[in-house]
Parts: sequence; structure tokens; C-alpha cells
Amino acid sequence: MRFAKRSFDRLGGTALVFAPLLAWLAMVTLAAAAEPLPSWNDGPARRAILGFVSRTTTPGSPDFLEPAARIAVFDNDGTLWPETPLPFQARFVVDELERMAGDHPEWRENPAITAALAGDVASVLRSGPGQGMMLLEATHAGITVDEFENRVRRWLDTARHPVWGRRYSDLAYQPMLEVLDFLRANGFTPFIVSGGGADFMRVWAEEVYGIPPNQVIGSYGKVRYELRDDRPVLVKEGGIEMLDDREGKPVGIHRFIGRRPVACFGNSDGDQAMLEWTTIGREPAFGLIVHHTDAVRESAYDAHQPISGKLVTALEAAPRRGWVVVDMARDWKVVFKPVTEAGE
Amino acid sequence: MRFAKRSFDRLGGTALVFAPLLAWLAMVTLAAAAEPLPSWNDGPARRAILGFVSRTTTPGSPDFLEPAARIAVFDNDGTLWPETPLPFQARFVVDELERMAGDHPEWRENPAITAALAGDVASVLRSGPGQGMMLLEATHAGITVDEFENRVRRWLDTARHPVWGRRYSDLAYQPMLEVLDFLRANGFTPFIVSGGGADFMRVWAEEVYGIPPNQVIGSYGKVRYELRDDRPVLVKEGGIEMLDDREGKPVGIHRFIGRRPVACFGNSDGDQAMLEWTTIGREPAFGLIVHHTDAVRESAYDAHQPISGKLVTALEAAPRRGWVVVDMARDWKVVFKPVTEAGE
Repeated sequence: MRFAKRSFDRLGGTALVFAPLLAWLAMVTLAAAAEPLPSWNDGPARRAILGFVSRTTTPGSPDFLEPAARIAVFDNDGTLWPETPLPFQARFVVDELERMAGDHPEWRENPAITAALAGDVASVLRSGPGQGMMLLEATHAGITVDEFENRVRRWLDTARHPVWGRRYSDLAYQPMLEVLDFLRANGFTPFIVSGGGADFMRVWAEEVYGIPPNQVIGSYGKVRYELRDDRPVLVKEGGIEMLDDREGKPVGIHRFIGRRPVACFGNSDGDQAMLEWTTIGREPAFGLIVHHTDAVRESAYDAHQPISGKLVTALEAAPRRGWVVVDMARDWKVVFKPVTEAGE
Repeated sequence: MRFAKRSFDRLGGTALVFAPLLAWLAMVTLAAAAEPLPSWNDGPARRAILGFVSRTTTPGSPDFLEPAARIAVFDNDGTLWPETPLPFQARFVVDELERMAGDHPEWRENPAITAALAGDVASVLRSGPGQGMMLLEATHAGITVDEFENRVRRWLDTARHPVWGRRYSDLAYQPMLEVLDFLRANGFTPFIVSGGGADFMRVWAEEVYGIPPNQVIGSYGKVRYELRDDRPVLVKEGGIEMLDDREGKPVGIHRFIGRRPVACFGNSDGDQAMLEWTTIGREPAFGLIVHHTDAVRESAYDAHQPISGKLVTALEAAPRRGWVVVDMARDWKVVFKPVTEAGE
């Protein structure tokens, strides 16, 4: 018994104490051994991302950045998930109009709503900001922020994308999810900086991208606080108080983050100002443009995108500014995250 | 030698392996043993804070909150540092007017600026928002955000408070610094939600409170992005785009944080709406009002505070709403953080 007891002390006891330490060591070793960005083909884009992260996070490197400075900003539509043939939030608007139409007989007299319900929301959006705003307000305003969140959540649970047949929240770009994970694993804090509605994105951004609400910057309308029957509510009043697009993006970055990012990921001319704000005259700094070149797996567009996502001047400026241009067809092994039973 | 080698293996070798583990254990033990909130006298306020943190962070507690939900919001002026006889940002305005007056001979014809320079900024602020706004724009607008940051930093480095003779950044309330530390040590994320200017507070909030810029929510004006000689700049244009006070505070919380806090710390009727938004109809939730009762060590005021910090309706609502009221004179062992050589 004495021998057994000593054996336990020397072997089992030690093992018990060391077990968590060993498990942790194994995890760290495995994580270090796993190739980062596995859905990216080896090429200049992948190597540029790896190189930037390596030189900004290696102690002693002249480009080393303290974790607090490792701020990365991401456009959403067209950068983290698709925006063609229509931005997802526009699809939400159309689906909501359909769901609510029975309670709004007056909508039958409204040409913009009628066109949208007939499936031609693109022409409504092209006809000018006033008409699009009207559709937006019909589906986004006059309700509490809680009720709006419930509506977005219900839509996400039930709607399927007409082209890919999957839940919208399953259509994030797998290679970009890996960039988010890789940056986070290296002490970066990612923020979304999108022209999309902040209240819309925050419902699903944590689940889809792992990005919490206070790191989601988007466009927003007026909101009013009031006590209703002694309960506090916030009511979405409509209008656009901030349009977080083009020159509005650096303004939004300043307003919400309060410091300049060191890495910026976008896909259109709407992201050019924040690419400039992140990179010009700054070192180290990183800018990347996702160029939609893959007509087979997603869609191919740049100059001729009619509604959102036009890419002309930012693409032209990229070589001069040192921005990395991702060729989706060539650089990405897969576009969407793999279909899993849980996800479908 | 064999004995020595074995001794090393059994003692020194083991100790080498265990050293980091033991050091960590010692730290954890010491941290647990140190009394939290040492500058608070034992009483209902201190016990309420300890009790709330304990029941929301103890696994298995019916009130347990996941770390992501542990969001705490703090008013700044009058809650984390003084606001009498004048808010510190108003002092910055006056000091800046003095510094700049030589370059602005036209200011001699301006009654509001003349009054402010003569030391009577209080009467200017009382005369209505238009006059105060004019002083604000004279010192806050028409410059880049970088230039504004430099001005605030220079002021903090050189200015001394006329009553306490210390740097403004050394006048944080020690008991509240301990609340911030205690909450952070328990997985809470603190945000400032203040009527003060976001650009003003973000210059020093990280150094003074350990709160990074993206967790500082305040009032803000219009900002314009432009390329100047091919360099990107953000220009402060003036005006107030968002007044983060009263009913604006829950709106700011929604806009910036995107979820409801579970703990709210304020000191005036300007904080009542965010106390309501945090606590009414929600459990667990925590509201606290710092009541300025200490005319000897700081100042005593509530209903009769003329410029900012009036406390009437929130104090009246506190018992009904379950908000803890701190009696500064009775509850705080010290008010300001101790004077150190480095700090003075």
C-alpha cells in the first residue's frame, strides 16, 4: 500500500496537477502548427496578410504594434458576404413588405412598394434615395429597437437566399471568416464599418462573424427614448442620421473607435476613403480590396455594378496606395463556408 | 553526484517547472485576499456593489451573467471626477480662449468671450446654449482631430485646477477608480456615457480611467473627411450632432454599445434616463447615484447646482427604482487619488 500510495503521488498525483498544463500546451502547439488561412490559395494576397500580421506582432520587429493599436476595419456587404444581385438588407425589406402587405391596403396605391413587391426593388433603388428611403422607413421605423431585432431574427431564421438557397447568415465568405479568426488569434480587434444599418447587422454579426454589437459600425436613423407605462423603450423614428459610406466611413471610424485602424478590408469605391484613412502616410498599415472576379462561384463585377459595390477609383488607386487586390476566382479555394447539417 | 543530480531533479527541476504555476497561484490568492474597494467605508453602498458583482459573477447563481452581458456605464462629470464649480471642459475652453486671444483681436468686441476671459464663464453658460456653443466652437472647431488632441494634451500637461491645485487628470475620484478596477477584475466592461465631448474625453480617459477610446461615448459635432495635399484629415466642423445627455444617453448607449447595460453609475438628473434604461423591469441590474454631500473635501450640492449636475428627480426616484445613493461624506474614506510624486 505504501508503494502504491507513493506511485500515485509520483505518477498519478503529478499527472493530475500537470494535466491542465499539458492540455494547454498541446492546444497551443496544435494551433501554432495549423496553417492559417487554409481556404486561401498560396499567392500574393495570402502572403501579404501573413506578412503584415507577422511583422506587426513579432516582438522586436520594427513594425511591432501593441495589441491596443491592432485595430482592423471591415466593410460588410461584398467584403464579408455577398451584395449581388441585391444587398441582403434590401432583401429583408422586400420580404418584410410582403409579410406586412396584408395589414397595409394603402400600399397598393404606392408605385415604389408595388414595384418592390413585384420583385423589382432594384429599379426602385435606382430611381433615387427618396424612394429607397420610403421602403426602408415602411419596414424599419415606428417600432421599438426590440421589435426590430425580433423581426430581423425571425427573417434570418426563415428566409433563404434566392440564388444559393441557404440561410443568409450561412453566406459569409469562408476565406474572410478565416482572416477574422487569424487576426483575433494575433491580438487584433476587428470592427465592421458598413453602409448597412447598424441595428440590422448587430442582430447577427456576433453569431456569424464573432463580432460583438459595440464593434459593429453602420448607418443609423433617429431613435427616441421614452417611458411607456413606466417601461423604458427606444423607438426607431426613421430618417438617416448617419450614412456610414464613402467619406462617412472615416467619420464613423473616428466617432466610434476613436483611433485610426492599421488594417482595412473593403471591396468597393465606398471603402476608398477608409482605405485612405487607414493607410496613407502610415507604416505599418494594410489595405485590401476583395475584387469580385468569380462569375461561377459567386459573381463577377466592378465598374458595372448598378446598385452598390461599384469598384472603379479604388481599384485604380490600389497599386499607387499599396493596397492588396484579392482575385476571388484565383485566391480563394472556396467562397462560402461549407454546408453543414447544423447550418442548413 | 548521483544523489545531487536526483535531488536537483526532484527538487530544483520540479520547482523550475512549477515556478510559474506557483507564482500564478500566489497572485490569484493575493488578489482574492485583498479587500476590494478599500477607499469605501463599510456601509450599504459598498455592500450593494459587492453584492451585485458577487451574484452576477458566481457560477450557479440565479443572477449569473455571461461576461459579454457584463456591461457597466458611467457618467463622467460629477461621477468619476468633479464638475464644480465648473465642468473641466469649460475650464479648458477658458484656458484656450486665453491662450488664443492674442491672435484674435476681434474677440475684444465679443461680450461672451470677454465675459469668459474675465472669469465669468458661468454667466455665459447660464445665458443660453447659443453663447456657450459659440465659445465651444471658437476653441473646438475648424481644426483637425489631431490638432484638437494635441491642444487637449498640452492643456492637461500644463493646467492646474484652481481649487485643488492639481493636474485635472489627477482629480479622478479614488473610490470610483476602485469600482472600475473591481468591475474589470470581475469581467465587466465599463463604458463612459457622458454629456462631455467625446473627442475631449478620449484624449485622457485611457490614462486616467483605463478606458479605451471606443468605450468612451460623449457628445460630438460634425466632422468632415478630406484629402489635403494627398494626406487624409478629419476636420472638426462644429455644431452638435449628438448631445449625449438626459434622453440622449440611452440613445447613445444603443448607438454605440448596441446592448443594454446591467449597471449604471451617475450623479445627476442628466443620468436618470440611462439609470431607467439600465434597471427598470430588469433583474439583475444595478443603479447608483453619487450624491455630492461633502462640502469639506469636495463640494455639497444637488438641487441648487446652476450649470450642470442638478440632482432632484433622480434622487426622488431612487428609493422607488432601487438605485443606491452614495453619500460621499459618509461612504468615501478619501475623495481624490493620493498625491504621488509622479502624479504631481
